Amino acid sequence: MMKQVLLGIFGGAAIMTVGILIGHYGIAKSGSAPSWVNDVAKDVDESMVQQFLSEVDTTEIQGNLQELTKVPHMATSAGDEQTVKFMLQRWQDSETGLDAAWREEYAVYLSFPDPKNPNKVTVVNPSDTVLHTIRQTEKPYTDDQRHPDVVQPYAAYSPAGHAKGKLVYANQGKTTDYAELNKTMDLRGTIAITKYGGAGRGDKAINAEPYGVVGVLVYTDPLDMNDGLMSDATETYPHSWYLPPSGVERGSYTRDYGDLLTPYLAAKADTYRIPESDIKGLPPIPIQPIGFEDAYVLICALGGAAAPQEWQGGFNCTYNFGAPGFDTTSTFNNSDVEMNIYNNATVKNSSNVMGVIRGSVEPDRYVIYGNHRDSWVHGAIDPSSGTSVMLEITRVLGRMVKQGKWRPRRSIIFGSWGAEEFGLIGSAEYTEEYFTMLSERTIAYINVDIAVFANATLRASGMPSVQNVIFQATKQVDAPGLDSTSVYDNWKRFTNRTSPAHGLIPRLGYLTGAGSDYAAFVHHLGIASMDISYTYDRSKTNARIYPAYHTAYDTYDYASKFIDPGFFSHQAVARTAGNVLIRLADSLVLPLSCRDYAESLEQYLDTAVGLYETKLQAKGISIEPLKRAVANFRSAADRLDEVIQSSDLANETPLKVRRINDQLMLLDRAFLNPLAFPDKYAFRHVIWASSSAGKATFPGLADAFAKAELSGLPSDWARVHYHLSVVSQAIDGAASTLTDVI
Amino acid sequence: MMKQVLLGIFGGAAIMTVGILIGHYGIAKSGSAPSWVNDVAKDVDESMVQQFLSEVDTTEIQGNLQELTKVPHMATSAGDEQTVKFMLQRWQDSETGLDAAWREEYAVYLSFPDPKNPNKVTVVNPSDTVLHTIRQTEKPYTDDQRHPDVVQPYAAYSPAGHAKGKLVYANQGKTTDYAELNKTMDLRGTIAITKYGGAGRGDKAINAEPYGVVGVLVYTDPLDMNDGLMSDATETYPHSWYLPPSGVERGSYTRDYGDLLTPYLAAKADTYRIPESDIKGLPPIPIQPIGFEDAYVLICALGGAAAPQEWQGGFNCTYNFGAPGFDTTSTFNNSDVEMNIYNNATVKNSSNVMGVIRGSVEPDRYVIYGNHRDSWVHGAIDPSSGTSVMLEITRVLGRMVKQGKWRPRRSIIFGSWGAEEFGLIGSAEYTEEYFTMLSERTIAYINVDIAVFANATLRASGMPSVQNVIFQATKQVDAPGLDSTSVYDNWKRFTNRTSPAHGLIPRLGYLTGAGSDYAAFVHHLGIASMDISYTYDRSKTNARIYPAYHTAYDTYDYASKFIDPGFFSHQAVARTAGNVLIRLADSLVLPLSCRDYAESLEQYLDTAVGLYETKLQAKGISIEPLKRAVANFRSAADRLDEVIQSSDLANETPLKVRRINDQLMLLDRAFLNPLAFPDKYAFRHVIWASSSAGKATFPGLADAFAKAELSGLPSDWARVHYHLSVVSQAIDGAASTLTDVI
Repeated sequence: MMKQVLLGIFGGAAIMTVGILIGHYGIAKSGSAPSWVNDVAKDVDESMVQQFLSEVDTTEIQGNLQELTKVPHMATSAGDEQTVKFMLQRWQDSETGLDAAWREEYAVYLSFPDPKNPNKVTVVNPSDTVLHTIRQTEKPYTDDQRHPDVVQPYAAYSPAGHAKGKLVYANQGKTTDYAELNKTMDLRGTIAITKYGGAGRGDKAINAEPYGVVGVLVYTDPLDMNDGLMSDATETYPHSWYLPPSGVERGSYTRDYGDLLTPYLAAKADTYRIPESDIKGLPPIPIQPIGFEDAYVLICALGGAAAPQEWQGGFNCTYNFGAPGFDTTSTFNNSDVEMNIYNNATVKNSSNVMGVIRGSVEPDRYVIYGNHRDSWVHGAIDPSSGTSVMLEITRVLGRMVKQGKWRPRRSIIFGSWGAEEFGLIGSAEYTEEYFTMLSERTIAYINVDIAVFANATLRASGMPSVQNVIFQATKQVDAPGLDSTSVYDNWKRFTNRTSPAHGLIPRLGYLTGAGSDYAAFVHHLGIASMDISYTYDRSKTNARIYPAYHTAYDTYDYASKFIDPGFFSHQAVARTAGNVLIRLADSLVLPLSCRDYAESLEQYLDTAVGLYETKLQAKGISIEPLKRAVANFRSAADRLDEVIQSSDLANETPLKVRRINDQLMLLDRAFLNPLAFPDKYAFRHVIWASSSAGKATFPGLADAFAKAELSGLPSDWARVHYHLSVVSQAIDGAASTLTDVI
Repeated sequence: MMKQVLLGIFGGAAIMTVGILIGHYGIAKSGSAPSWVNDVAKDVDESMVQQFLSEVDTTEIQGNLQELTKVPHMATSAGDEQTVKFMLQRWQDSETGLDAAWREEYAVYLSFPDPKNPNKVTVVNPSDTVLHTIRQTEKPYTDDQRHPDVVQPYAAYSPAGHAKGKLVYANQGKTTDYAELNKTMDLRGTIAITKYGGAGRGDKAINAEPYGVVGVLVYTDPLDMNDGLMSDATETYPHSWYLPPSGVERGSYTRDYGDLLTPYLAAKADTYRIPESDIKGLPPIPIQPIGFEDAYVLICALGGAAAPQEWQGGFNCTYNFGAPGFDTTSTFNNSDVEMNIYNNATVKNSSNVMGVIRGSVEPDRYVIYGNHRDSWVHGAIDPSSGTSVMLEITRVLGRMVKQGKWRPRRSIIFGSWGAEEFGLIGSAEYTEEYFTMLSERTIAYINVDIAVFANATLRASGMPSVQNVIFQATKQVDAPGLDSTSVYDNWKRFTNRTSPAHGLIPRLGYLTGAGSDYAAFVHHLGIASMDISYTYDRSKTNARIYPAYHTAYDTYDYASKFIDPGFFSHQAVARTAGNVLIRLADSLVLPLSCRDYAESLEQYLDTAVGLYETKLQAKGISIEPLKRAVANFRSAADRLDEVIQSSDLANETPLKVRRINDQLMLLDRAFLNPLAFPDKYAFRHVIWASSSAGKATFPGLADAFAKAELSGLPSDWARVHYHLSVVSQAIDGAASTLTDVI
């Protein structure tokens, strides 16, 4: 009996086992799941996110910054090449590197001062005696300023040339400033001194030239940058973050971004180059930046009537227009200002350093994270704060990859761009070379240039679709110095708005300009992009930007003492941007919200209707197509979102998930129109293009309307109608891409 | 014992069953395959293809043609509306219709003669006596020509106007023809008579105007169209397919395609419209087509020297230049030709009819099949032969769908375009309205306009990537009248070439022009496209096109008697195009060959190197970047093809298959450059754009080279270098899209 029972049990077990095996392997009609079925359904691993956050290390970031700022690394300099090699070494590291890293070189048009003939600005009297010479270098406070590779302050792309004339004060060098000044005097043959701010750098010269001005000086007014403080004995760096009197903001004086000789083409060695004389938007007359130490001497000696109250600055004297020229009571009486500019433009090889982590499930979908590598001098904040953050993100992620602990669903591309300071050149050339591939495959672009302007709060800008993923990420990161407050809550405290859909939320800015390397991704390629940093408490400073910006004082010493002691803000940015990156790379359904995009379009529409509808009606132009388009977009976005929310996408065919993700990824492509802005180089995005009208609404419409209202010309009103059609049809087109075929 | 055994058996069976159930459903670790796993791996079902081929029916096609040609159906006419309703009824049929069908309307700029003031051309003597009046209608042979809706022959978009002057003969109205004629006389104030062919319709007037010519007549020379035959008593229709003496080819005389008032925008009611005066490329002087019956009277009366041998035509007289004017011995001596043209341009609503079969697995991938619906008169061949074929394809496929027997993997969109005859307007507006959606999702566009020009052999043109799928399809279809010969073999017999990869194969043409509705898909959107028809045995006729083209003789009677009795060629085209359509819609891996594309680029490169390399070197322009780009493309194409051939894609993740398919689908997008051809409206494809240089190579390069060689100007040579960079970088960009990320 015992034996029988056992036999029965064993027999039954054996039969059961055979049955299980048959059931598991033998029944083909629905088949067993291929191994990839689980892989394709994977979503973000929250424990991996937590591990990433915990591994982001302030000491590592600090070490990165020290290494990157050892020497000045202006684009194509020896120091720049040193940083190229450093990036490659880090990204090719066998323990913390990426799957692959390489350099991509472009031959780009750059402008430098001549080390053998430094630019010189002097005050000379009628017998050609030099009464005053503008400092040619910044005053050293540490060894950093004494480094032989510190480039002399200059205006990149200012023409070389000699200009001499009576000085006038032209406020910020805006068109209206010169027009105002021109009412009181003949500007022909004068040299204008202008403040930074208000107009683009090069515009200060472009706006001056029609009035016959022959040269322009630019300086940083202590009121705009130093909250009025001026004394380097007690007040400015090295005593604080404020700009010393001899500090000079360098910069590119171009209007357009990308390599100027190869528009819309990658600047390879053999590429066709336009003649230099065909470049548009360069300063037509010599222009040179100077420190406020010298500007003080010049401005306070000016004669003529007092400039308007709004033109006055931080000096303890009245800012006069100039007679033109200096006041008769001044020692400079009857003297000229003489500018001798020896800048030299030349084609040089600049490198991007690229690194990749290959995606496991969708290698043909890219999340791109980038920052420029080149600085004007040591560039501790601009851009090395961002590069230090990027290197810390790649270190943590690279190690997980090398250890086999993680591989993103989608591919991640890191870009360390070259020659940004000269006009976003490296990133622009990269997007020109790989235009189609990037357009077709890129989910999003994350830009972290200056990671930390100041340590008060997050600042983020981007397409409305990225708002939600930034919110998600910031809710998981502690605000620096505030362990129990998230970056999100702290941000909301500083900058917020009330959203119809979400209530009170932090305010995400828009990327309407070309301030950093996101420009080509946003405006030329129409890729969902964002720019992330830590920034000021505006109740504590009115500085236009952190005061050492583009000067020889933007050093490790400055950054570690005055911008982010302890590097906790750097860490918060690394955690935030890295978290966003992981979510974009790993989420099953892309964390891009078309409904948030609809909200922004509705706000733009409301503004447009309020500002324009009545006047357009009077011109026989109906704004209804735009209203219909935004409504179409809204209902398409709501429908798509409903599909996403109501589907069990992890158990659906991966092609359905891909379909939805493609709709989200490609949304912004529908807003591109390569012909809408013929006068704005590589601005194709009809929602976010730059605008001079200063209205928070559709830029083509706003600018055309402002122009038509001013001129009253029927052809200008026709252009308003044109832009109304362009933007309406773009939004309708975007709505179509959010909609299923039938 | 019996009971025990049974118990044992049943017990064992029960245990086994439980085991099977556990094994099948209960073991989750590798999971059982979701139901979609098999669906996503499905490929073309060859038995379904065979069923499709067998169901395509000549009688059905014949019935379609009879219905479509009952009345004239010029764009926006009552007859056109009748065909709209017919298409909708067919595509919405509950047994043979599609999943959905609807109309899309555009308000487009069309040009018509004035029925109350018919255009009039006369010969008048100095005392204003009318000596001869050109026929205003074509001679009726059947009731078709007597239909009141037959539009008077006219040149659409000719300006209205009155012109009077001495007649001259200007051959084909090419630039060189007028230049030649101008050598012998002053052309100011003359009327030029020209033959169809050699130059675009409108160009005959555009080229004339600078010489002071005030009006142009156009006629069809019997040598070019009728193999010399002229007599309607015995030789021409209704005795044969040849054009009767009074037959007149109508046509659009525009240079650009799409709605002329809304460039790059969909022509909706509210869309911004440019002023009519801003339209480019229209005839600047009145132009009117006439029959050869009248041309004979005019030309044979001309005075002056005999025109060159190449200018002589089919009339039994010498074609003289004109003195200017008629010969002194003629009854027309000293008489003028007077043209009174009353054409009227106006905005009218034109409809596309759209129909869709929704895809099962990848509904967001589209195969588009289209033809225009509008004709000039009855349009039996142009376009109703194609529409009859399309309707037969939708009938067979629609029934399979309605019966639940088949549903394509990808979505199929059918387009019955409006207003093609006026400049491909319906298809162009459709692609402008849905630009982004179509760019992102469209696999291919199949155009079958005139399905049957004649019944000798297939003719097919397209991107090189579609060659293979057309070959596959044609090998499965019997050539009409040749049961044991395939369409493929018959085609190869008529038109062939030797391919380095494939040996002797039929010659696929390229779509370099804007001859039918493929234009916007090829040139504006960069979608792999093809145009398929049956055509002539060129050993039997030199007719420029089938002789009733665009006349009142293009009727059901004509088509069924002289073009395709029995409709077997229609059937062969329906089978071929339908087979291609099914393969594009159902193949697991898209049947598009990047290696065949590489072969074409290599041939273009060889031609360019042979024609240009030495001369470019002399100008300091290296052709090496183009050589490198084509080599890059070749190796990327070979690598991708190797992946396709060596992978077991049916068992791979569907995202891998999708990745490869996206690479194939999007290949042509990389060749688009919206700025490369600023003078060619909506030509953006740098490989297939139209070219005037007449060389089988890269069009931008060829045209720029021809211009530079003629002018010798450095700026023109710079433009050659520019186009070399444009095409090289486009090909490099395409190679990148064929390559994996790392």
